[in-house]
Amino acid sequence: VDAVIGLDDVRAAAARLDGVAHRTPVLTSRALDAMVGATVLLKAETFQRGGAFKFRGAYNAVSSLAPDVRERGVCAVSSGNHAAAVTLAARLCGTRAVILMPSDAPALKRAATEGYGAEVVEFDRYRDDREALARSLAAERELTLVHPFDNPMVMAGQGTVALELLDQAGPAALDALVVSVGGGGLISGCATAVSALMPGARAIGVEPEASDDVARSLASGRRERVTPGRTIADGQQTPTSGELTWPIIQALVHDVVTVTDEQIVAAMRVLFERCKLVVEPSGACALAAVLAGAVPVAGQRVGVVLSGGNIGADAFAALIAA
Amino acid sequence: VDAVIGLDDVRAAAARLDGVAHRTPVLTSRALDAMVGATVLLKAETFQRGGAFKFRGAYNAVSSLAPDVRERGVCAVSSGNHAAAVTLAARLCGTRAVILMPSDAPALKRAATEGYGAEVVEFDRYRDDREALARSLAAERELTLVHPFDNPMVMAGQGTVALELLDQAGPAALDALVVSVGGGGLISGCATAVSALMPGARAIGVEPEASDDVARSLASGRRERVTPGRTIADGQQTPTSGELTWPIIQALVHDVVTVTDEQIVAAMRVLFERCKLVVEPSGACALAAVLAGAVPVAGQRVGVVLSGGNIGADAFAALIAA
Repeated sequence: VDAVIGLDDVRAAAARLDGVAHRTPVLTSRALDAMVGATVLLKAETFQRGGAFKFRGAYNAVSSLAPDVRERGVCAVSSGNHAAAVTLAARLCGTRAVILMPSDAPALKRAATEGYGAEVVEFDRYRDDREALARSLAAERELTLVHPFDNPMVMAGQGTVALELLDQAGPAALDALVVSVGGGGLISGCATAVSALMPGARAIGVEPEASDDVARSLASGRRERVTPGRTIADGQQTPTSGELTWPIIQALVHDVVTVTDEQIVAAMRVLFERCKLVVEPSGACALAAVLAGAVPVAGQRVGVVLSGGNIGADAFAALIAA
Repeated sequence: VDAVIGLDDVRAAAARLDGVAHRTPVLTSRALDAMVGATVLLKAETFQRGGAFKFRGAYNAVSSLAPDVRERGVCAVSSGNHAAAVTLAARLCGTRAVILMPSDAPALKRAATEGYGAEVVEFDRYRDDREALARSLAAERELTLVHPFDNPMVMAGQGTVALELLDQAGPAALDALVVSVGGGGLISGCATAVSALMPGARAIGVEPEASDDVARSLASGRRERVTPGRTIADGQQTPTSGELTWPIIQALVHDVVTVTDEQIVAAMRVLFERCKLVVEPSGACALAAVLAGAVPVAGQRVGVVLSGGNIGADAFAALIAA
């Protein structure tokens, strides 16, 4: 495959992130292992700066811009974690961030983004053309648009999640790595690292049932587009994978499975009660697939990425009570 | 002070726990530091085996019993974390545990205790004399009663929390260590370690307002007894400190302050939203005092023990919604 990133790009990203991003812990739970009949290594990106893996890609992208470009500022379209990540990366690089955010974005994520110092511009998720809005904003204000996934520097940055996990997992092989899929930034980066360093391991993606474009794409063999339905997994309501992420997914990802909102809540509950971890819906998606039996793992050693933990206590309480 | 434990006992406990108990992580949060104007080191005993610091003392006590005594089994009176800890310690030592548990104990804690293999015997928290019940149970069945706090091996085991934290905190001094107080097992062990290894640091305890016997005792200079009122901090509803813990508290603890249930819930919310950590009410008590300004910490470097994380998602949701 003539991919836009390779292992060297992921390694270069890791070098840029060294001392800036957190090397997040890999956590294990005997109770969880007993529930699924496997050895599960939880890569807790909930403890990443900004509360999600997104900081890795955002910082790799923003810090790599030419100084004069970077100085003019960056912009991004995001309902949450990418917004906070780009804003934090911009601040650390001494520049400004303008974020286009849907008016129904989770309150906690908007507050975090503003807290990191972004200027937030609202748009209507259902009415406005976000791509056009973003392009005109970037052009008018001379900002560099940092795409949430279809950007080689972002993809390489996200791949450092797998690079770290493989290192932390030690010499014993992993049989699979399970990660959430929205536009494919995380899984394209992670699959790049896994296929190069541990080619025997399967890279498996998980989407919410309501936004299953990548599962459909793997089935049909071409990049499909869907109209995302309602789901609590707000980080994965992407209609299609990227032009750059899709070829890597097609070449290197073994399977993409789907989970329901109920399965996601069940996983959030297990993570809360057994592992004492706060994980947002999209962040619990990968474990939900393992718990639901959608990914066969019996007797295996499996890495599972908990991709983010940005959910308010009230929103969590409402999900648990529903 | 002619204390029943010293630093050597805490060090001996650490050696027994090595490779059995988890060396729990020390977590930090820029957001939290900004809120309190201090550098806060969170010692996350939520990730300890059994979900609370209690495993340290229980294992130190059970594993130190003479083989013939240990073989006959152990018993304990506890509404939760000590119960699970003694049961788990017994299982690891190849013996049995019988637990006297109040009929209104949190469901999750009872389930965990039974899950670890204990025989649970119920009693009425408000009607029965738990001490008499425990003594007769121990005598009838030839079991060794493991007291939740008034036992030198338990106290020394809990002190390993501070021993570890001081090691993890590195060469820079701590100005204070803040821990929750029920019967005084944790704070007596921790104060023993702190006073020996970092005598410039204050050891500070935190009680729920509804069960403030130790705060009253420090004020009056003698061991006071209260009738604990209702509080969400179910791990700290102890009417008095121990005969063994009290002299150490009086000699080595700088101050004991109190917090309200509302302040505890506020701390649980901060830990959830900012730190992505699940902490039970008693476990959040120490941070609650810091957040509420009951412990002066401005500009200081402060260790705060998050003593446990055993709370069900439904119970958490109910507290947040209240």
